Amino acid sequence: MPFIYERTVRFQDTDAAGVVYFANILSMCHEAYEASLADAGINLNRFFCYPKVAIPVTHSSIDFTRPLFCGDRVRIYLTPRETKDTDFEVSYEACVVESVGDSMDQVQEATAARALTRHTCIDSAARMRTFIPDEVMRWLHQWGDPNQSRAARESDLLL
Amino acid sequence: MPFIYERTVRFQDTDAAGVVYFANILSMCHEAYEASLADAGINLNRFFCYPKVAIPVTHSSIDFTRPLFCGDRVRIYLTPRETKDTDFEVSYEACVVESVGDSMDQVQEATAARALTRHTCIDSAARMRTFIPDEVMRWLHQWGDPNQSRAARESDLLL
Amino acid sequence: MPFIYERTVRFQDTDAAGVVYFANILSMCHEAYEASLADAGINLNRFFCYPKVAIPVTHSSIDFTRPLFCGDRVRIYLTPRETKDTDFEVSYEACVVESVGDSMDQVQEATAARALTRHTCIDSAARMRTFIPDEVMRWLHQWGDPNQSRAARESDLLL
Amino acid sequence: MPFIYERTVRFQDTDAAGVVYFANILSMCHEAYEASLADAGINLNRFFCYPKVAIPVTHSSIDFTRPLFCGDRVRIYLTPRETKDTDFEVSYEACVVESVGDSMDQVQEATAARALTRHTCIDSAARMRTFIPDEVMRWLHQWGDPNQSRAARESDLLL
Repeated sequence: MPFIYERTVRFQDTDAAGVVYFANILSMCHEAYEASLADAGINLNRFFCYPKVAIPVTHSSIDFTRPLFCGDRVRIYLTPRETKDTDFEVSYEACVVESVGDSMDQVQEATAARALTRHTCIDSAARMRTFIPDEVMRWLHQWGDPNQSRAARESDLLL
Repeated sequence: MPFIYERTVRFQDTDAAGVVYFANILSMCHEAYEASLADAGINLNRFFCYPKVAIPVTHSSIDFTRPLFCGDRVRIYLTPRETKDTDFEVSYEACVVESVGDSMDQVQEATAARALTRHTCIDSAARMRTFIPDEVMRWLHQWGDPNQSRAARESDLLL
Repeated sequence: MPFIYERTVRFQDTDAAGVVYFANILSMCHEAYEASLADAGINLNRFFCYPKVAIPVTHSSIDFTRPLFCGDRVRIYLTPRETKDTDFEVSYEACVVESVGDSMDQVQEATAARALTRHTCIDSAARMRTFIPDEVMRWLHQWGDPNQSRAARESDLLL
Repeated sequence: MPFIYERTVRFQDTDAAGVVYFANILSMCHEAYEASLADAGINLNRFFCYPKVAIPVTHSSIDFTRPLFCGDRVRIYLTPRETKDTDFEVSYEACVVESVGDSMDQVQEATAARALTRHTCIDSAARMRTFIPDEVMRWLHQWGDPNQSRAARESDLLL
C-alpha cells in the first residue's frame, strides 16, 4: 500500500516557461518522503538534522511525462523498498488530479512524473555503512509493497 | 477575519544553520496568499501566469522573532487591506504551533515572523496602473479586517 | 566603497510570470553578502554553519522597481553599516546592466530593487547578544561607507 | 572539449544536514547548461521563455559521491551529445576544487556528483517533435565530444 501525499503547485515551484521547474518535482517527491516518515511517527528534525544514522540520497532519477502548472493539484504515490540491509529505495509517481464533470467527487489522474531515490544508512560517528534503523524498518513495512519485497529477496537468493 | 494557512516546515526550506532560510519565510507567506486566493475562487494559473491585470509585489518587509525547524507545524494568519483603488497590502503572522501536555487537542502558538507585502494592479496590455479587479475586491472583503478598511477609507477622505 | 557582486539571472530564479520570483531577489542579495564576507577572508562554512557567534537576519525589507528576466546581468552594490556594538545592517542596490550601442565596453544600469537586511550577533553557547566579532568589524570597515558610519556615530551621541 | 562552469556553493543551496540539498545539485547542473548556451551566443530569455522550439528536460538522473558544503568551489564539466535528430542529452561532472599546499595555483578536484539530462525538441505551435534548431546544433558541436558523437552515429546506422 503506497503512502499518498497531496499538495497544490505553488507559484514558486514554477519557472518562466510557465510550468514547474524540473528539479522542483524531485523536491516535491522528497516532501512526500518526509510526510511518510512523519506519518510513521519519525521526528523529522532529529531524522534529518541530528541523526545517529544519516541516510543521504545516493542516487536519483526522474522521467517527466506531463508539465505541471501553478494551481494544479498533485498527488504523489510513494513506495519504499529495502534493497540491502543497509540500503533502501523509494519510488514516486506524481499525478495531476482533475475534477470530472460537474461533481467534485469524481476525479481523474494523469501521471506527470515517475521518480526514484536511493538511500544508504551511514553511522554518523563511525562514518561507515550501518543497518537500516528500526524506526525506518517499520516505515518500510508500513508503506512498502510486500510482494515486491519478497520478489526482491528471492532474486537476492538467486545471485 | 484573517485567512489561516497551515503547513509543515520541510527539509528543503532549511539551510545549514539548521533553521528555515530567511527568504523562504517570505515564500511561505506567498503560499498563504495563493491559498487565500484559491479559497476565494480565483484560478491561480490565470491570476499569476496569464493575467489581464498583473498584480506584482512592489514592496515587502519581514521581522524574524524565532527560528523555524524542519518538521515544525507553521500557521500563517493572513489579512489583506485595500490601500488605494489600485493598491492593496497583505500582512502575515507566522506562528509555530505546538501541542501542550498529553492531549493533541491543546496547542499553543509562538510568533516566528511578521511580514508585509504591497501589491499594485497593472493593466497588462496598457502597462498602466488600473483598478483592483472585482474578484480581488471580493477576496479583500472576505479576509480583510472591516474596521481597518473603514479606518483606511476615512483617512483617505481626510487627505 | 560598496562591494560589487555580479551574476546572471538563471532560469530557476524565475517564476511563471516570466520574471524573477520576488523572494529570490532577497536570496541574490544574500549571495552578495556571502561573496563580500568571503572576499574579506571569512570562511563561509564556519561563519554560517558552525559559528561561535551566530549572526541571524532579524529584519529585511525590499522595494521592487523593475522586473528581472532570465539571462539578465545583475550587479549588486552592497554597503554594510554598524548600528550598535552588537548589530549591523546591510543595504543592497540591485541593477540590471545592459550594453549600450555596438561596443561591449559601454554599459548602462537600471535599478531593479533596493533591499536591507538587519543582523544581530548572538553568542551560540550563551544564547545572548554579544559584540560584533573582529573579522566582521574588518569587513564592516572594508566595505562600509565611512561618512555614513561617522554620521551614525554622531547621531548615537545625540541620543 | 567539455564546457566548464564554476561557482561557489551558497548558504541557500544547503539544508539542515549541513550540505547541499540533493535536488539543488541538479539545479547547479542546469546553471552550467544555461551558461554553456549563453557562451554559444544563445539568448537565454528567448530560449527558455518564448521559444519557437521548446526543449524540455524529459529525463534526469544523478549519482552523489561526496557532499558539498557552503563556500565550496564547484567546477562542473558539461558535455552535450545528439542522440536523435530531435533529441540530445547532457552529461555533467560536478567536482569540488581545493587548493593544495601553500600555492593558490595548485588545485586538486574530487568528484561530488555525476548527472545526466535528456531533452526533446518540441515545436511550440504544432506541439509536435521537431528537429534540433541550428543554434543548438552549433552548441552541440562546440562542446560535444566528437568521438562520442561519431560512435553514436555509427551505432544508429547499425540499428
